[in-house]
Amino acid sequence: MSGPAARVSPLAPKRFPDLPAIAGVEAGIGRAGLYKHERPDLLLMRFAAGARAAGVFTTNAVGSAPTDWCKQALSAGRGSVRGILVNAGCANSFTGPAGDAACKRALEAAAAQIGVGGAREMLAASTGVIGVVLDADKIEGALAGIELGPVRWPEAASAIMTTDTFAKGAGATCEIDGVKVSLAGIAKGSGMIAPNMATMLAFVFTDAALSTPVLKSLLRAETEASFNSITVDGDRSTNDCVLLFATGQAKIPPIADAKDARLDSFRAALGQVLRDLAIQIVRDGEGATKLVAVNVDGAASDASAKAIARTICESPLVKTAIAGGDANWGRIVMAIGRADQPIRREMISVRFGDLFAARDGMIATEYDEGAMSAYMKRDELEISVTVGGGSGRARMYTCDLTKRYVEINGDYRS
Amino acid sequence: MSGPAARVSPLAPKRFPDLPAIAGVEAGIGRAGLYKHERPDLLLMRFAAGARAAGVFTTNAVGSAPTDWCKQALSAGRGSVRGILVNAGCANSFTGPAGDAACKRALEAAAAQIGVGGAREMLAASTGVIGVVLDADKIEGALAGIELGPVRWPEAASAIMTTDTFAKGAGATCEIDGVKVSLAGIAKGSGMIAPNMATMLAFVFTDAALSTPVLKSLLRAETEASFNSITVDGDRSTNDCVLLFATGQAKIPPIADAKDARLDSFRAALGQVLRDLAIQIVRDGEGATKLVAVNVDGAASDASAKAIARTICESPLVKTAIAGGDANWGRIVMAIGRADQPIRREMISVRFGDLFAARDGMIATEYDEGAMSAYMKRDELEISVTVGGGSGRARMYTCDLTKRYVEINGDYRS
Repeated sequence: MSGPAARVSPLAPKRFPDLPAIAGVEAGIGRAGLYKHERPDLLLMRFAAGARAAGVFTTNAVGSAPTDWCKQALSAGRGSVRGILVNAGCANSFTGPAGDAACKRALEAAAAQIGVGGAREMLAASTGVIGVVLDADKIEGALAGIELGPVRWPEAASAIMTTDTFAKGAGATCEIDGVKVSLAGIAKGSGMIAPNMATMLAFVFTDAALSTPVLKSLLRAETEASFNSITVDGDRSTNDCVLLFATGQAKIPPIADAKDARLDSFRAALGQVLRDLAIQIVRDGEGATKLVAVNVDGAASDASAKAIARTICESPLVKTAIAGGDANWGRIVMAIGRADQPIRREMISVRFGDLFAARDGMIATEYDEGAMSAYMKRDELEISVTVGGGSGRARMYTCDLTKRYVEINGDYRS
Repeated sequence: MSGPAARVSPLAPKRFPDLPAIAGVEAGIGRAGLYKHERPDLLLMRFAAGARAAGVFTTNAVGSAPTDWCKQALSAGRGSVRGILVNAGCANSFTGPAGDAACKRALEAAAAQIGVGGAREMLAASTGVIGVVLDADKIEGALAGIELGPVRWPEAASAIMTTDTFAKGAGATCEIDGVKVSLAGIAKGSGMIAPNMATMLAFVFTDAALSTPVLKSLLRAETEASFNSITVDGDRSTNDCVLLFATGQAKIPPIADAKDARLDSFRAALGQVLRDLAIQIVRDGEGATKLVAVNVDGAASDASAKAIARTICESPLVKTAIAGGDANWGRIVMAIGRADQPIRREMISVRFGDLFAARDGMIATEYDEGAMSAYMKRDELEISVTVGGGSGRARMYTCDLTKRYVEINGDYRS
């Protein structure tokens, strides 16, 4: 999954952001040699005693050894966690009992290296080729050389990349009940992206002291409008996960209810970090040249709106038209119709930015091909559709489908 | 939808087949000028008095004026029909009341031209750009110059093409209760193909004397394993329809029940013609270089097997790997997992032809990259997966996803 010589996506942010330090989090990177060429492929992190974690995981029914491990460990340990080991270059998915054993062995070695109680206090995440058992020997060898220290976020984000063309990070600070709290997150992902917790991994860290149920509730809610609202190619990975870690070093008063108003600022900051990371993944969508936001309103429900938005975002004909700079609204109408959702044909409208292409079930009277063509030259597009008279709405992000996507995915085993 | 200079698909049959004449069917072709360049774009047909028809139509909720018309006319006339007018170059979909009126006006002119009672005895089918009202003036002008005669199948099949690179036809003969019966069918379709009755149209003609309910029942059943079992890009058109016409000129004894054993030979012949036409559409899939059959067994039900087969067939990562000649079975496993169907991971196997890539939830011990690579060079591939211990099975057809697909669909308004 290292891929052909990576050209940085034209949609990449200008630089990696400055992320806050998170008290209670240390990291080190290593090279296990899971790629043929030399590159860092291991990230090892240690959390201070008392840290808590929550995760959301792929709904792909095949899954993987590391996602199985995390689900079990988080459940058994009630969210208590002391470390995580992340590798690129091997997904350790569809590897049967041998994959499970390799995962456990690597975590035992990692726990020993960072001096915590054992594999049960560790989480694991893997990304890369499906069907290859993780090489625990290589991991063990590389772990011995890793020294932990303050997290260097760009290096940490780079160590977990596969076909990514840039390292992804986002951070925020906020207050909980008057106490300053920091958040820092990293993510990877470029292809096989249609998370429904993708080959996307994201890790967000905070120094807030929050209980596991609160972390879990906040993460689930905020994942819906971020990672679960992006799609590059509709292919949902076996290994996707988003993990939220709270070290508790910022001492805040106990908050037992995720709906507590004192969490409003934190919830907003978490949502912002997750959305920022998710959109960076779309910006690094394989072969992408345009970032597209699709808004649906007038649907029967928010879930129905999302199903329509997803159908538009995943339509090869819509995506190739966008790649060609063609405001092909007829294909958007087709996609609305094939979503198998309740719609009212005579109420359908389609807008590109503020320009109406269709209105009330027909081509818009003010339709202007020239203005539309000019709009389509932008590298960030907003497509908004009304599909009926309901109150359901959704917003999803995708990218265009270019020849480069075919090249990246047809030219080598990833 | 005329597209860039069409190169004939490398998967095209060597020649148009010889189709039997169907007593009671006449045809003529015309040029209404719905394309910028000169080409035939109208097909007008007349059926002998007493002809019956049944149809299956797109489940795209947007639909189109012609599919709305046909559903209503077949219902009101109990399947009695005297003619059909088919145009390429304009789908007359998402055109509101103006589109409905234009459809009716064109059919009135067509009925007058062939000397039948009126628009109510006519069916309509349109394919081409979505959102443009059919130009009834142009149609009327062209109709006046059309003379009916014996059907020249290759010309009829060519007149209904859009981005198709070859004309599609299939025929068969069989016996019903000792009486010889003939079938001839034509179809068009290349992109926006994921029929679930696509921009596909198919018309099949027989001289058998069969009642409307029998025709309807046979057509619905046989569409499931043919047109509803192909996908090029997962995009289901607003205008798809398959129409079956029976002129009744071959005198057979009355058969009231579609399950009557005397229909076995006809059902098999109809199924064969529909499958042949459907596979020709996949062979003409936009940019296709490989024809792929996907077999799923061990599923919870046939419907579940089909959902899994469809997910594999529509996965961009699977399709681009095939384009690249890469036996990327890990992506097939991913697609099985993301189909949201009941599966048993430890029972999953994946075969390319007779070569096992995965078996019992892991890479197959006999996996041979060399043999696999050699197999993948073929232009017709069989991928077979077992997903569990159930008895559900399905077979679907698709093609690869190449740079040419992106080029065809990104370079112009179709």
